[in-house]
Amino acid sequence: MQTGVWEDVQKIRAEAPLVHNITNYVVMNSSANALLALGASPVMAHALEEVEEMTGLARALVLNIGTLAPEWVEAMLRAGRVAKRRGIPVVLDPVGAGATAYRTETARRLAADVAPTIIRGNASEIRAMAMAEAGTKGVDSMHGSEEAMEAARALATAHDCVVSVSGVVDVIVSRSATLRVANGHPMMGKVTGLGCAATAITGAFAAVNADPLRAAAHAMGMMGVCGEIAEEHARGPGSFQMHFLDALALLTDLDLSRRLRLE
Amino acid sequence: MQTGVWEDVQKIRAEAPLVHNITNYVVMNSSANALLALGASPVMAHALEEVEEMTGLARALVLNIGTLAPEWVEAMLRAGRVAKRRGIPVVLDPVGAGATAYRTETARRLAADVAPTIIRGNASEIRAMAMAEAGTKGVDSMHGSEEAMEAARALATAHDCVVSVSGVVDVIVSRSATLRVANGHPMMGKVTGLGCAATAITGAFAAVNADPLRAAAHAMGMMGVCGEIAEEHARGPGSFQMHFLDALALLTDLDLSRRLRLE
Amino acid sequence: MQTGVWEDVQKIRAEAPLVHNITNYVVMNSSANALLALGASPVMAHALEEVEEMTGLARALVLNIGTLAPEWVEAMLRAGRVAKRRGIPVVLDPVGAGATAYRTETARRLAADVAPTIIRGNASEIRAMAMAEAGTKGVDSMHGSEEAMEAARALATAHDCVVSVSGVVDVIVSRSATLRVANGHPMMGKVTGLGCAATAITGAFAAVNADPLRAAAHAMGMMGVCGEIAEEHARGPGSFQMHFLDALALLTDLDLSRRLRLE
Repeated sequence: MQTGVWEDVQKIRAEAPLVHNITNYVVMNSSANALLALGASPVMAHALEEVEEMTGLARALVLNIGTLAPEWVEAMLRAGRVAKRRGIPVVLDPVGAGATAYRTETARRLAADVAPTIIRGNASEIRAMAMAEAGTKGVDSMHGSEEAMEAARALATAHDCVVSVSGVVDVIVSRSATLRVANGHPMMGKVTGLGCAATAITGAFAAVNADPLRAAAHAMGMMGVCGEIAEEHARGPGSFQMHFLDALALLTDLDLSRRLRLE
Repeated sequence: MQTGVWEDVQKIRAEAPLVHNITNYVVMNSSANALLALGASPVMAHALEEVEEMTGLARALVLNIGTLAPEWVEAMLRAGRVAKRRGIPVVLDPVGAGATAYRTETARRLAADVAPTIIRGNASEIRAMAMAEAGTKGVDSMHGSEEAMEAARALATAHDCVVSVSGVVDVIVSRSATLRVANGHPMMGKVTGLGCAATAITGAFAAVNADPLRAAAHAMGMMGVCGEIAEEHARGPGSFQMHFLDALALLTDLDLSRRLRLE
Repeated sequence: MQTGVWEDVQKIRAEAPLVHNITNYVVMNSSANALLALGASPVMAHALEEVEEMTGLARALVLNIGTLAPEWVEAMLRAGRVAKRRGIPVVLDPVGAGATAYRTETARRLAADVAPTIIRGNASEIRAMAMAEAGTKGVDSMHGSEEAMEAARALATAHDCVVSVSGVVDVIVSRSATLRVANGHPMMGKVTGLGCAATAITGAFAAVNADPLRAAAHAMGMMGVCGEIAEEHARGPGSFQMHFLDALALLTDLDLSRRLRLE
């Protein structure tokens, strides 16, 4: 399985695909650095005056609602339409869906209007989106340990897309298939923007791998393996952040074959 | 005295209070990372469509005027009203008050309309706010080494709040009480956003400590001690930044009892 | 030649000139940190309500179109007018010119209306601006290895300014003179915002050196030398970023005399 990840990494490093990010203020710098360290080419642009033209140059589009505002949503919708017309993958990160109605509704609207290739979030965000789809019935019907999986499957089915849920074990599902990634380290929760970096990196993998289920899983595998390597060198979250970027740039086939737990 | 700081740190680490930040673009990432390293849960949200709902979830609200614009001021006012209604602490950082009329007036307006629990800034910002309160007379009446203290006291009295002034010695005052923190290192001035991080961290301490005077002083003590530890490991401002985040995460009771100079 | 650079560095460290940046979201934090590490005083402000007053306090103005939007362009135009009236240097970074029509046109409009002292970009940005000036004829007339130089000269002549083009060898031209800086390291391309940091640092050098050709070249020399030092300490782009900031703060006359290749 690790061979697939490594092939994608090599392609990203060789082709440096342009990934267009319309993302939140908090993580613009850290997402750009993660993409650069991986070998991709990030661009951030949101102005209505240029957003469609920029998407027209990109090989993947990443939409992240972390610090939302109405004009940004409009930019995401326009960029999304260009991406779909051009057939490039769109990755949606519904940051904070469930926390406020505005975020939940925006995430749902983007999913409906843009038809993302991959939705990537944590369990509570994916649950919030799935419940919004299912109406109030959804709230009652989902409980217990398999809840996130059920929600992800419901969302994948509703939008015919891949849903990638980060957690202790990452779960990546399509309508019919499931992959799991059991890599990573709790320290990753102590650095802001690593979830958003996972989304941006998912965009880079989707740019070079036509199978969105595998692209999404490979991205989470890469993230998790680099997180483990970084943690071995780090004292705390500050040094972790630095070693994580180094690990993205220095990752080898051997690191993957030793550590990757993707099935 | 250090016991109080340590108790707050333990509470923050155990409870991970949600701190809602409406802050400037420059420090969104670094403030989020400081809060995470400390053990708190940061969220950044400013859209009028969701700002009140987000404040409704938080245990503290931090308002920072560092890269101001009218719609952000409106968001701060609305969030501030929700915070006051809910009785959660509000920390205001009047970044750049005194530099432009817009900042001075906005800082004053937020102080008047929101009634922050704690105002946290450097001496010139606090002075600018106090002078704006006092009108032109204030300008002439404040000179010499005790100027910042006088200004802080005037501001604390005018708004019945705590005023926390960073400097070689930090001074934290209410209407009637004064605390001083003699920790920190000049290197802290060579990294952007450490003042803003102090404000965000003050929010986290205020979330777990009902006494705003002590919360504000404990936050500055934590900042200063971590700055000293970071400096011992750092070569320059780049490595200082990293070690500072590590220190926030790794700080022990022993570090505090050895280093804290709060009285 | 290195003496000139060192004199400028000493002046920046001694005088801490205020550099007003209207720049993109991605690099606000990293540009502020680069300026602080160098010894300058950064301020970021873009609100129409205060932008002119802030430029009125500064010793240099830096305009960077990296995450453009209409109200930011208006702020840049207003700040630019104040800067010209006051006679302080203006540095324009046409980030992404050539990528979208909006960026190319905005870069051209800022060049025409503000009359920047220095335009600093990479070869494709400078080419895009020069071609926009020259109309379609320009496209055909520029080919081969001397293309960027020709474009830079054309732009410098059209706007009577200095044009600083980063590359393996940086080329800095006025209407009639040329300087080259052969420092730096490819790792610098793996960290986001180092080009923008070069622009901000060019602002700091222009604040203390009245000769914009030399100021621009000295800034690129400083960047390149610090990049080389950082690379010797770094494992990957994460640690490079940290060591680069440390190098900016720790640079000595000896480092410059050993490494600087400016002619």
